[in-house]
Order: sequence, then C-alpha cells, then structure tokens
Amino acid sequence: MAHAPCFASDNYAGVHPTVMAALAAANVGPAPAYGADALTRAACARFKEVLGENAEPFFVFLGTAANVLALQAMTRPHHAVLAASSAHINVDECGAPERILGCKLMCVDTAGGKLTPGDLRPFLSHLGNEHHNQPRVVSIAQATELGTVYGIDEIQALADFAHENGLLLHMDGARLGNAAAALGCDLRDLTSSAGVDALSFGGTKNGLMFGEAVVFFRPDLARDFPFIRKQGMQLCSKMRFIAAQFLALLDGGLWRANAAQANAMARLLADKVAGIPGLRLTQPVETNAVFASLAPRAIARLQERFAFYVWDHERHVVRWMTSFATTEAEVEAFAAAVRQEVAAAEAGAEA
Amino acid sequence: MAHAPCFASDNYAGVHPTVMAALAAANVGPAPAYGADALTRAACARFKEVLGENAEPFFVFLGTAANVLALQAMTRPHHAVLAASSAHINVDECGAPERILGCKLMCVDTAGGKLTPGDLRPFLSHLGNEHHNQPRVVSIAQATELGTVYGIDEIQALADFAHENGLLLHMDGARLGNAAAALGCDLRDLTSSAGVDALSFGGTKNGLMFGEAVVFFRPDLARDFPFIRKQGMQLCSKMRFIAAQFLALLDGGLWRANAAQANAMARLLADKVAGIPGLRLTQPVETNAVFASLAPRAIARLQERFAFYVWDHERHVVRWMTSFATTEAEVEAFAAAVRQEVAAAEAGAEA
Amino acid sequence: MAHAPCFASDNYAGVHPTVMAALAAANVGPAPAYGADALTRAACARFKEVLGENAEPFFVFLGTAANVLALQAMTRPHHAVLAASSAHINVDECGAPERILGCKLMCVDTAGGKLTPGDLRPFLSHLGNEHHNQPRVVSIAQATELGTVYGIDEIQALADFAHENGLLLHMDGARLGNAAAALGCDLRDLTSSAGVDALSFGGTKNGLMFGEAVVFFRPDLARDFPFIRKQGMQLCSKMRFIAAQFLALLDGGLWRANAAQANAMARLLADKVAGIPGLRLTQPVETNAVFASLAPRAIARLQERFAFYVWDHERHVVRWMTSFATTEAEVEAFAAAVRQEVAAAEAGAEA
Amino acid sequence: MAHAPCFASDNYAGVHPTVMAALAAANVGPAPAYGADALTRAACARFKEVLGENAEPFFVFLGTAANVLALQAMTRPHHAVLAASSAHINVDECGAPERILGCKLMCVDTAGGKLTPGDLRPFLSHLGNEHHNQPRVVSIAQATELGTVYGIDEIQALADFAHENGLLLHMDGARLGNAAAALGCDLRDLTSSAGVDALSFGGTKNGLMFGEAVVFFRPDLARDFPFIRKQGMQLCSKMRFIAAQFLALLDGGLWRANAAQANAMARLLADKVAGIPGLRLTQPVETNAVFASLAPRAIARLQERFAFYVWDHERHVVRWMTSFATTEAEVEAFAAAVRQEVAAAEAGAEA
Repeated sequence: MAHAPCFASDNYAGVHPTVMAALAAANVGPAPAYGADALTRAACARFKEVLGENAEPFFVFLGTAANVLALQAMTRPHHAVLAASSAHINVDECGAPERILGCKLMCVDTAGGKLTPGDLRPFLSHLGNEHHNQPRVVSIAQATELGTVYGIDEIQALADFAHENGLLLHMDGARLGNAAAALGCDLRDLTSSAGVDALSFGGTKNGLMFGEAVVFFRPDLARDFPFIRKQGMQLCSKMRFIAAQFLALLDGGLWRANAAQANAMARLLADKVAGIPGLRLTQPVETNAVFASLAPRAIARLQERFAFYVWDHERHVVRWMTSFATTEAEVEAFAAAVRQEVAAAEAGAEA
Repeated sequence: MAHAPCFASDNYAGVHPTVMAALAAANVGPAPAYGADALTRAACARFKEVLGENAEPFFVFLGTAANVLALQAMTRPHHAVLAASSAHINVDECGAPERILGCKLMCVDTAGGKLTPGDLRPFLSHLGNEHHNQPRVVSIAQATELGTVYGIDEIQALADFAHENGLLLHMDGARLGNAAAALGCDLRDLTSSAGVDALSFGGTKNGLMFGEAVVFFRPDLARDFPFIRKQGMQLCSKMRFIAAQFLALLDGGLWRANAAQANAMARLLADKVAGIPGLRLTQPVETNAVFASLAPRAIARLQERFAFYVWDHERHVVRWMTSFATTEAEVEAFAAAVRQEVAAAEAGAEA
Repeated sequence: MAHAPCFASDNYAGVHPTVMAALAAANVGPAPAYGADALTRAACARFKEVLGENAEPFFVFLGTAANVLALQAMTRPHHAVLAASSAHINVDECGAPERILGCKLMCVDTAGGKLTPGDLRPFLSHLGNEHHNQPRVVSIAQATELGTVYGIDEIQALADFAHENGLLLHMDGARLGNAAAALGCDLRDLTSSAGVDALSFGGTKNGLMFGEAVVFFRPDLARDFPFIRKQGMQLCSKMRFIAAQFLALLDGGLWRANAAQANAMARLLADKVAGIPGLRLTQPVETNAVFASLAPRAIARLQERFAFYVWDHERHVVRWMTSFATTEAEVEAFAAAVRQEVAAAEAGAEA
Repeated sequence: MAHAPCFASDNYAGVHPTVMAALAAANVGPAPAYGADALTRAACARFKEVLGENAEPFFVFLGTAANVLALQAMTRPHHAVLAASSAHINVDECGAPERILGCKLMCVDTAGGKLTPGDLRPFLSHLGNEHHNQPRVVSIAQATELGTVYGIDEIQALADFAHENGLLLHMDGARLGNAAAALGCDLRDLTSSAGVDALSFGGTKNGLMFGEAVVFFRPDLARDFPFIRKQGMQLCSKMRFIAAQFLALLDGGLWRANAAQANAMARLLADKVAGIPGLRLTQPVETNAVFASLAPRAIARLQERFAFYVWDHERHVVRWMTSFATTEAEVEAFAAAVRQEVAAAEAGAEA
C-alpha cells in the first residue's frame, strides 16, 4: 500500500484495470468521430439490453452535465425542478442548473436526502399561475448524496405522483450501481420498470476514467437531445473511448462487483466504528458512505493522515466514502485510527 | 493496415501510444479530485514553462467548451465576438457561443479563413451605442479551419488592433501545434509573445484521448474561471487523466512531432494530387488539411472507399485531413485512387 | 408650429389625441391587475374580430420584447431564426434575441430588406446535423426596416416555404399598419390569411404612448406564453392602460388613418425631393420612410435644423421618417430646405 | 362610489390625477426617443436632488425588470443573490432572476420578511469554493412584501455586513415611498445614506400608470447599464412619458402624500378590525398592508363582494392592501363587512 487510505470521495479512485484495458483495446486505427463508430453502437445496444428496449442512451463527459442536460430536455425556462435540498444539482453544481435551464429549483429539506410525494404536494398549489415557475420535473438521487437508498416501491410512488400531476421523474444515478448492489436488484428495476423518465447513469464514480450516460425512457425526450448535447458542450469527438468504458462496466457485471465492493467496505467501516464512545453514525449506511459525528479534535487529527471531508462543520459531521478500490486492510487501518483519535479526544475532554 | 485510410478529420485518429502509456502510468492509487493532484500541478507548471510565466492554464474536456468558456471569461452578454465566417465557433458548435455567452457573433467572410485589422474596423462604428452589441473580443483560429496559418506578425497586428480599441484577442488553437510546426516556431511565439490574451490549446486533435486547455495570459481573465468552468460543466473530477496526457504531449516535443507528421502527410498528399487534370487545390496547404475541387462523380466514388467530408456541396470542394497517425503508404494509396477516379470522371465527362 | 419638423423616427412622435383620451377614460376606479380587467378582455376580443378567431393576443410593453418573446415561444435554443441582415432583430435590439432565445440568427443580405424563399433554401442544407443550429423560424418585417412592403402573395410564398420545411413564419409588424394602408388591404390579409404563425403588432410607432401586441395564430404557440411573458419581464400590472390604447387604435380605423397620414407625408416628401440634382432616392418609397443619398455637407447643414438619422455613413444615405403627426407644412418646409442645401453643396462642389 | 372597494393590491389602483395631467402635458410635439429628451434629463436631475449626487437613475417599464436588471448589473452567473424567502424576486417573478441572471437565489425563511446580518453569515462559508455559487448581492425589500419596514440602522447594518464581506446591497423599493412615509424620513436616508448600492424605485404602486427607476449609487454599476437595459428589453422609446410621471411624483412631495394616504388607510383598517373576536392580525401594520387570519367561511363571503388575496390558504391568512386611492369610506364599509362576516362565521362555528 504505497498511498495513504483515502475516504474522501469515490472520484478520488483511479480507473478499474478492466476499464483501462478496454481503453487500450479501443485504440486501434481511426474511427468515426462523434459517436458514429462501432463501439458506441455496441454500447448503446448494451444499454438497451440492460435497461429496456425503450432506453435511449447518450454519452456525455461528466455527471453535472448528465444531470443538467437531461433536465434541459425535460423543461422550459418557466418550469421548476423539485428536489431535496441536499441534492447534488442544488448544492454541488455551482448553479449550473439555474444557469443552463433558466429554471428555478424548488427544494425540500429532508432528513436522509429522500423525497416523498407528501413533500412535493405543496408545490402544486400554484399550477397555472403565471407569476410562479411551474413544477415540471421531480429529480431524485439514487443512491442519495447521504448514502441512503430509495426502495423500488418508493421510486414507483414518486413516479406515479409525478405522472398523475403532469410531471416527469428524473433520477440522478451517479451512484445507481451502488443502490442496485445494495438492493440486490437489476438496474432496470430501479429505472424504467419503476417509472423513471430520464436517468443520469454514473460511470466515473464506479471505476471509469470519465464518462456518464443520459438515458431517456420516452422517445419525445430524446428527440432533440443530440442538439442539446452538442450545444451543451458535451459531444465527445473520440466517443469510442467513453463507449468502450461503459461496455467494460456493463459486461460481466463489473458495475455490480465494483459497487458491491465499495458498499461492503462502507459497511465494514461502519461496523468497526459503530460502538466507539463519542462517535455517532448520523445516517443509515446503505451504500458506500459513512456519515459520523465525532469530536472536532479527533477530526483534525485524522485529517492529518487521511483524506476525507467534513460534511457539517457546525455539527462536526464527517463523510467517509469508499470506492471499488478500497480494501479491507485500508478500512481496518483507518478504523483503528478513528478509534484511537476519538478515544484521545474523549480523554482530553474529560481531563 | 487493417483499416481503410481515413482522411475525414484529425479527430478520427486514436490516441498516440505515448499518451496512452501516460494514462496507464497515472492510474496509481487515489488522487485528489478536481485538479488538486500532483499531475495537474505538474502539467500547469509545464504550461508556464512552455507558454510563459503569465500563462494561467485550466483543463477542460473538449474544444467547443474551451472556446466558449474562454470567451465567457472575456465578455458580458451585451458584447460581440468578431470572427471569420468560417470560424468553428460560428459554424460548428451548434450555437453554443450565443447560447452560453448570450453574445452576438459578428462575422466576416474571408478567402482563407484569416482576419485582418481591416476586416474588423467597420465593426467599431457603433461603439457606445446602446442599440448594438459592443465588440469586445477578436477570435481567430490558428491554424484556421481552412488549414491556413497566421504569421507571427499577422497575429501581432491583430493583437495591436484589438488592444488599441479596447478589445481582447482570443485564439482557437485546436490545431495550434500544426501551426507552430508549420512555421517552425515555439508555441509562445504565436501566443503570449504575439499579444494573445486567451488561448484554447488543443489536445484531442493532436493525439490525446480527450482534453483541451484554456490558457489566459492576463490574471484578471483567469480570476473567475474556476467558477465559470464548474458552472460550465467542464470541471473534470479525475483531472489527473487530462493532466497526464498534456504532460506527455508537451514533454520531449511530442506535440511538434505529431503535428509535423500530420502536416507532412497533407503536404505529401497535396503534392501527389496537385497536377491531376480536373482537380484543383482551393486553399494553400499550410498545415494538415487539403482542400480540393473535383468532379462530383469522383467524389462519390472515393467516398465509397475512404472517409472524408465534402466541404462545399455546391462547388464540389472536399476536405482531406491528415493526422499524427496518417502514414505515407496511406497517402500514396489514397492519392492513387484520387488520380484514378478523377481521370475516370474526366473521361466520362468527355465521352 | 412651435417645434422644428422632425424626420428622425416615428417614435419621436407623441401620442395621438384619441389615444390620450382613451387613457384618461380608462382611469376610473380600481381594476384587476395583470390583464384580468374588462378593457383587456374587450381589446382581446377586438383583436380576434380584426385578425381572425384564431388570433391569440397578448400585450407587452415594447417592440423588441414583442419580437423576442414571440420568437421564444417558437424556438428552443438549438434552433435558428432566419432573417434579413437589415432586420430590427438583427441590428437594433442589442443582441436581445441571441441573449434571450439562446438561438443563432442566420441572416441574408438583401437589397430592399425583403426575403424570398430562394434566399432561405441554402439554410436547409444542415437539417438534422447536430453540429449546426436548426432553422425553425423565418422572421420578416412588414413593412421592412427599409420602408418596403411585402405583397400578400410574397408573404404567402414565404409561409408555404416555411411550412413545407417544418418552419414557422414570424412577422415583425412594428409598422404593419403602414403596410396595410399602403396596400389598401385588411390587417388579416397580411397575417392570418397569408399564413403568418406569429405576429408582433406595433402600437407605439402608430400613435400609442407604449404597448405592442404579440398575436399567435396557432394555439400551441400561445399555450406557454403567459409564463414566457411574465418571466420575460413584460407582464404589465395596470394592463388596462395598454388595452385602452389598442381599443382606440383599432376602433373606427384610427390605425389606418394614422398610418395613411404617415405614408402620405413620406410620399409627398419623396415627390418634392425626387427631382433635385445631386439627390437620389435609394429605396422605393412604399410606406413612411424616405431613403436618400446626398452630399455630406448638405446632410450636415440639414441636421443642424432638423432631426433625422444618417443610415449609411459611407454612402451618405439618410433616412427621413414621417409619422401620423407629420403635416404637409412640415414636409414642405423640410423639402425646401433640402433643395436649398443640396443645391448649395452642389454649387460648392463645382466651385 | 361607483365601484366596490378594492383591497387586492396597490396595483389595482388607477393613475393619480396629477400624474395623468403630467402625461397629457408631456404630449406636445415630437421629442427625441430613448431618453435623449428634456423631460428625461429633468427627471434624472430631480432624482439626483432627491437621492444624492451619486445617484445614477435609469427608467424601465416595470418592477420585475427593475429588480432583475439591477441585479444583473451587480452579478455574474456564478454568483448568488441572498434574499428573504418571501421576497418578490423569489416568489413572484416566475423565475426571471434565475433565467436572466443565471444566478442562484439563496433564501432565508424569516418571520416578517426582514433579513438580518445573522441570517446571512452562514452563506459565507463556501466563499472561494468553485462547486458553489458565490454570494454577491444581498437584496432586501423596503417596505417588505409583508408590509414591514427596515429601520435606517437595520439597513445600515446590512450594508456594513455586505461591504465588509465583499458583497453589494440591493433594495427592492417597489414601496419605498410607503416605508419613508411610515418612518417620516427622506428617501435618501433609506438608500444612499444608509449604504444601499442599487435601488429599484417603484412608481406604479404609488400612483403612476407604468414606470420604475433603477438607481445605482456606484458609477461602476451604472457603466454598462444602458446596454443591459436595451438587451433586457426595457428601453422605452417614448421615454418622456415615464420621465414626466416621475417628475410629477417627486415634485411637491406627491410620492409622500400618496404613500401616506395608503399607509393611513391600512392603519385605519387595522384599527377597525383589531378587536374583532375570531380575527387576528398576523403582521405588524407598518405600511399599506394588513395581514389577518380569519375563518375560511368569512373569507369566502367577503371575497364575493370585495377583491383581495388569500395569502396563506393553509392558515387562512388574507392580505388587505390599500393604495393612494383608498378612502376612509371604503375602509369603513369594508371593516363593517369584515366584522359582520367574522361574527357570522364565529356564530356558525359555535352553532
């Protein structure tokens, strides 16, 4: 282990070796640019097998763009997107949604990052009133930014609510693999079968070098997307190199193996630290993130040796995130350090 | 030669082996995301060595984004960008500049894709008039979309004109390496030393898998760019993989070797087809593109076997583009086919 | 005549007395805001009588907004609007169309400001190509910015061309009244009956204080317009005061009387100056503008006494514009001055 | 009293007779368009006298545009605007701020619509972090949308907080006159002297037909505003008719008289209904709005006869708004009806 264990984010990880091999294998001679190549065709076909025949996939470079451009295909600027306050689109995209869509985000504070139909109903009260943005899309993250997971029935309930009220359902699936691995279900169970209209399917956080997919489950949403993608500065010229990565991820269940490893390491970490006096897990550990509150001095000492983020400075909550590349040995080393530093901080506090 | 020779575009080429090796070498353990890693630091330092200490480089995914976001840092929506009608920003970016900047492009028809101060002067007549967009940036491509090259003095003259009139000079350097190789000069001779204020430095068309750099030569332009890049959906999480490619390109002069090979192959092709009766070169061949007019039936026959684009359907002008990966054998095979098909078409026309 | 005759623009004129009286009459007690009042209902009904039952009118404050918001209802940002280079939307709105629509304007140089289907056909060659904005709207001005007028058959031909190619036809009718008065036809002959899909109907230049109408002739274009107008910052709270003005304009043919007076005065002016040696009319005088070339020194001397604009500084072309308020005496005084100054300039040139 | 008393909004009122007379008086002969006329010059000078020599006024058509365009001059799209959740810019402008600025609004729930520095401090925690919009403007409404008023010291405290943290202070003064009348101070005491950087100065709600002013107190903010206004579709061609109204409003203290009348009528209404069993005033009545909770059946009965808005359907809170045109007799008639209907509802509830 040449490098210190890292619990900062799953995008600190490198590229899975199988994916790297696929990139090398794709580098043979010239190929048509902008997606008119054989690998891109194959990857699109593969997506249809995995997610359903009605899936219309489009590759883009990164997750923020997948979210924003998917939402652009679903909205006009006088619309509103309903989301949890903790949503990536609300807090981590430097306002790209407002800037590119022109829309307002209408956000709800939630405990665990998950929306319910009950959270959304109040936003319908101004339908038809020209003074107010008109709700048009419900956007949920699966898994959420807090590591929690929607059950299939919960997604279906949101889809039903949306469709009954003339809205659409978008899923930010930057960590969809982690959710499916956690629930032990197929990707389509959480998306097309559950009523999702548009999906941002994450690759980078599950072992790719770069690349995400926007997948529409309604042809009307897909119709203008080639133009939206190009104008949105997300049309990759050497697209075969995104396609090859996704083929590697979808073939042989690599996506699930990677996600399961990440989840298992978070579970292991949670188990190791769960009983430590002075440390409290603040969210259920359902995928690859552990949220914990601990003494500020313990946080500071740990950050000297390990990379991770403080999630809530006021409440001393940290986020520890695992990836496909996280190992048991890393988790154990880290958990031991946590135990030691929290104990030291507790002792200091009593002294 | 497993694949047919391809003269469609330099972005049909794959990844240079040295670049691919650099990607593999960068894939070691975790690294901070979003550019806070050692490779990105090293690549930025390398850019300063190459382009001058005042260079402020930022990596993005693709060339359209490099152009549009560089221009965004230089403009407000009531400004105008002055460019040649043939500019990539005008014709090949699906209106991303207008969409993202909010600005108007004011374009001039040119013979060879190159602007002169004389072309620009008429646009200054409405300065200060609130009814009209205010010219703010002159944007030139080096090399141009027509394969031609600005001399250093020509760039300097445009920079002087711009600065004397309160404008800024942007260079779309998607093929800057080809221009520098053609002129036998350094990259900085064409950019910082010549008065360029902001540069889109191309990587993808010169052997990278993906990745371009926006380089500012004035600190005030760079100040807000981290936010512009993030909101512009171009902040790469695993940025070390762009940085590693650029390090490979800049180290040991790979950029120049690649560009010189592409240029030489275009030169060779031009020489081979120059004397063919019924074929006319429509642009001077200064970098890696050959523009030629020939009989429509010859074009059609050639397109059955080789990939290339018709540039002007009305005038039967085609563009043949070479890349770092183009070989002499490919050029010779193609030139022979051109000679044969043009002769056949001519014979047919006479018959 | 307390003030100097003014030939600068029809928006230098004041408010027609009948319109001013209507404003005073509308100022009785409170009335629902934002168009839910009786006068707005009446004005909308009146528009349907005048333009056809399929007319869906919406009031806005000014002409630039009428154009831009009408076009917004017809486009998405990856579309393009086809127009004459001389169009108000291209040259006189400080880039508001690009800024608000996100679209590219694709413009054609024309002699007299009028488009033909032949001008538009070349723009169809990139339909379906994601690298290029997709033509969606043809926008024409009736009367044009050069004072010329489309015949009914010319409008119909453009509408047919547009509809056959999946495009829509927008008419900038800032001076629609002048065109209808010139042609001696009804407003609907030039709009709904001729295949126009959306109309900017001008009021300010024909005697109103402020106020224009956007009129859609297809219900799908009107559907979201209440939101587009509000978000576009054009929803007037005390809307009865726009409605009252339009009722005054449409009742009893005031619109035609005003426009006919303006046209007649331009005709008179053209006739008076037509034979002057050294003066040349550069456009046919079909509505309320006279374009003429004359010696620079004559222009300068005239501008000391009369307000008007130089249209083309290089070619010494001026625009003299009349309004509903222009009188014969004003025209005669001005024409005499023109004759005198041009003669003096000619004499000076010969000396 | 020909019409029913109206307590819906101050923009249901008509035009003050003095203002209407000023409009008629301004309608003499032609005048330069777009603000180059004598009345506009006079009105701008008058604004400087009233608000201070550093005031740079610009006229626009309506309040939403005044707010949005003022904010546009103060921001770039990666910025954020901090405001109360109840702010007009947040809830009543159909997302025009997000659409036009590209910025995110960051809003705070408040009891009475008023912000404090303590509310704002948490938003500073992400300064410099490229993943998050950067706070740039604090926007407050004076008077607030809830009828409350900031004291001079409260404005000064917000201005100090803003400036100490590199932010700017914007004031939505759609009802600034009402606030100044309530506090018995001058307009400049609440604006330039208190540290406000940019002001939306309301006219329409205080007796004008249409027209608002954007006033900057820093020359750098004003510099590009002519272009922002034109591109923002708010440059009035016959601008003298806005200027004339503002001259009438500012001359002889008409603004204060109108506002004081509106305030007095709200005070009277509050006093008349204050003691009614079953009715509760939910906000302090400081300007021209009365917020009250009462039984739903009383609300319904009153709305059959009088125009007013339900503010909060869940909590049965109504807003009763007075204007310069509201009379004592109207208030008394309405208060009597309120008393009667609330009593009836209470009786019914007990029965």
